[in-house]
Amino acid sequence: MGDIKQLAVLGSTGSIGRQTLEVVSTQSHRFRIIGLAAGKNLELLTKQISQFKPRLVHFQDEKALPANAKCKFLSLEEMASHPEVDIVVMATSGKWGLQPTLAAVKAGKKIALANKESLVMAGGIIISEARRNGAKILPVDSEHSAIWQCLEGETGKPTRIILTASGGPFYHYSQAKLDKVTVEQALKHPSWRMGRKVTIDSATLMNKGLEVIEAHWLFDLPFDSINVLVHPQSIVHSMVEFSDGSVKAQLSYPDMHLPIGYALSYPERLPNPQLPRLNWEGIKELTFTPPDPDTFPCLKLAIEAGKKGGTYPAVLCGADEAAVELFLAGHIKFTGIARLVGQVLDEHKAISHPILDEILAADGWARKEVKRLAGGDS
Amino acid sequence: MGDIKQLAVLGSTGSIGRQTLEVVSTQSHRFRIIGLAAGKNLELLTKQISQFKPRLVHFQDEKALPANAKCKFLSLEEMASHPEVDIVVMATSGKWGLQPTLAAVKAGKKIALANKESLVMAGGIIISEARRNGAKILPVDSEHSAIWQCLEGETGKPTRIILTASGGPFYHYSQAKLDKVTVEQALKHPSWRMGRKVTIDSATLMNKGLEVIEAHWLFDLPFDSINVLVHPQSIVHSMVEFSDGSVKAQLSYPDMHLPIGYALSYPERLPNPQLPRLNWEGIKELTFTPPDPDTFPCLKLAIEAGKKGGTYPAVLCGADEAAVELFLAGHIKFTGIARLVGQVLDEHKAISHPILDEILAADGWARKEVKRLAGGDS
Repeated sequence: MGDIKQLAVLGSTGSIGRQTLEVVSTQSHRFRIIGLAAGKNLELLTKQISQFKPRLVHFQDEKALPANAKCKFLSLEEMASHPEVDIVVMATSGKWGLQPTLAAVKAGKKIALANKESLVMAGGIIISEARRNGAKILPVDSEHSAIWQCLEGETGKPTRIILTASGGPFYHYSQAKLDKVTVEQALKHPSWRMGRKVTIDSATLMNKGLEVIEAHWLFDLPFDSINVLVHPQSIVHSMVEFSDGSVKAQLSYPDMHLPIGYALSYPERLPNPQLPRLNWEGIKELTFTPPDPDTFPCLKLAIEAGKKGGTYPAVLCGADEAAVELFLAGHIKFTGIARLVGQVLDEHKAISHPILDEILAADGWARKEVKRLAGGDS
Repeated sequence: MGDIKQLAVLGSTGSIGRQTLEVVSTQSHRFRIIGLAAGKNLELLTKQISQFKPRLVHFQDEKALPANAKCKFLSLEEMASHPEVDIVVMATSGKWGLQPTLAAVKAGKKIALANKESLVMAGGIIISEARRNGAKILPVDSEHSAIWQCLEGETGKPTRIILTASGGPFYHYSQAKLDKVTVEQALKHPSWRMGRKVTIDSATLMNKGLEVIEAHWLFDLPFDSINVLVHPQSIVHSMVEFSDGSVKAQLSYPDMHLPIGYALSYPERLPNPQLPRLNWEGIKELTFTPPDPDTFPCLKLAIEAGKKGGTYPAVLCGADEAAVELFLAGHIKFTGIARLVGQVLDEHKAISHPILDEILAADGWARKEVKRLAGGDS
């Protein structure tokens, strides 16, 4: 078994954060929570503090946090790089994950990474800092965890990876029908229960595009070796093809406890009794079809931004986050998300090998630009 | 790359033997053929000798072999344990593989094992001798290779393995229709081109039963942890389930060069350019259904014989081989194979922890008994 691993969970009140704490609570002989950080949900954070008794805490509004003599307040960056933390679970959403991830990487931590944006926006910086400082990035996304599991024990690089996508709730919709999609419809994902932003990103397939960029950095593969297939059953979480033509796939019912547990306990596996084992008598078929780029332009926008590199992926992230906010607030149509992101990317004057400040500036510019353009769009 | 590995191919003129030589012929910087052994096809063996120039040869009828000053004649056992052989490719069919496999295991060789019968008949002896002598058994069957590939890099034992079966050409047949199956129909396998005996065994699902027993020994798993699913597309070659509920599967179009190459080059993978990469636009669906035990009694007979152990699996093998011969010769019906094997297993007075001679005697008894019973059956 070895020593108990000390965890800091950044984004502990979000979907991944809560599920991480569920995994940890059944494995107290393996893990101890020493840090919890949340952005907005003070009520839940307070409950988590009383349950897990972390020594380090963070809340976006420090003054709102009740005084607790046993908890030390730290910034996200301080917590992510704290010397007593063995594994940083990076479960904050959006661009808030970027700087703490970089701090964790520079401190040579193991990072269970659920935050897509940090690798999408600053993959080049994060991967090279990880290499330099001996940090290990352990993917938590179900797709990247699947690829990681399939790569274990292999000596050579894969020739291709195939990210599967559920296709979201609007997989067979026409453009005209997509135009009329409501917020409520878009928030009903067919197979995964997730946060609001990622649920909308799944419906536009932007989420899959961000995952392609993430996979490019995590597995050091060119974009042309990363394919996407729509797999509505959400049983095969991704696949890897090797030089001899052999393909390995990882399968399970949709369940985030599995990739979270794998990242925390790797190379071992944790028991996961609440997950039903695949029942093949109930699984009628597994199907795989290429995504339709016309219906889901976000996927193509993301892959193009990833290929161009520089500040384009940061603009992609910033524009998408702002556009999704506008959609959720009822100010733009569902199809307006892709249109706005595309417009902002077209306008962007990119920087090729950006430093962190330039990445953050590009993200900020994109958010403002979306709002400006949406003035005439809502 | 390391040194060139020296191979002896036992059963070089059979289906697996020929494909092994195809793999080797494209990889002359990795492998050298130093031994070839065949049973009946002298013409092909002579060709292979002139192409690969092995130093060691075997042919069932030694005198029929043309004199060749550069080739030394050896018995199968001598070749399998020859000090200069690095990897023994055990591609002989039926019980002829048993004693050479044992000789290779006792000599601590790496054995690329395509011969099912040796593990089915004498798994206990072979596995304990392999452990004692540091021999490594590398599976060549596509199903067991799939499981092996999925287990690489895992630290714990799987909770379940799932062997896939094409279901053979008669998957949806009724008993009445099965009764009328001709030899020609039974020799047409929907997805794999193989030898005659294994093709018939695939049609009865006996082959899958033998594979269950083989998997039990290869992966040290109880029979209840080994499931079989009919997967008519023959794309998923098998699956492994782990303690956290994660399942890994190995996929490709049916192609024996892949598992042969993996066994020879493990842990590396060989290029395999002749195998088309999976084209998901052409693969409509993957389906998995439990096999029907009433239509395919051989599967159940095999698993029961495996569970009982002792000399039962040897009787299973001997009876099946004899019954398949009778079917191929037109002396019994297709459904007669299962009936005869079942009758012989019922009659058998088993020995619990047999030595090799007792195993061979049980096999011989079963063959005779099938012929005796079939006297009134044909």
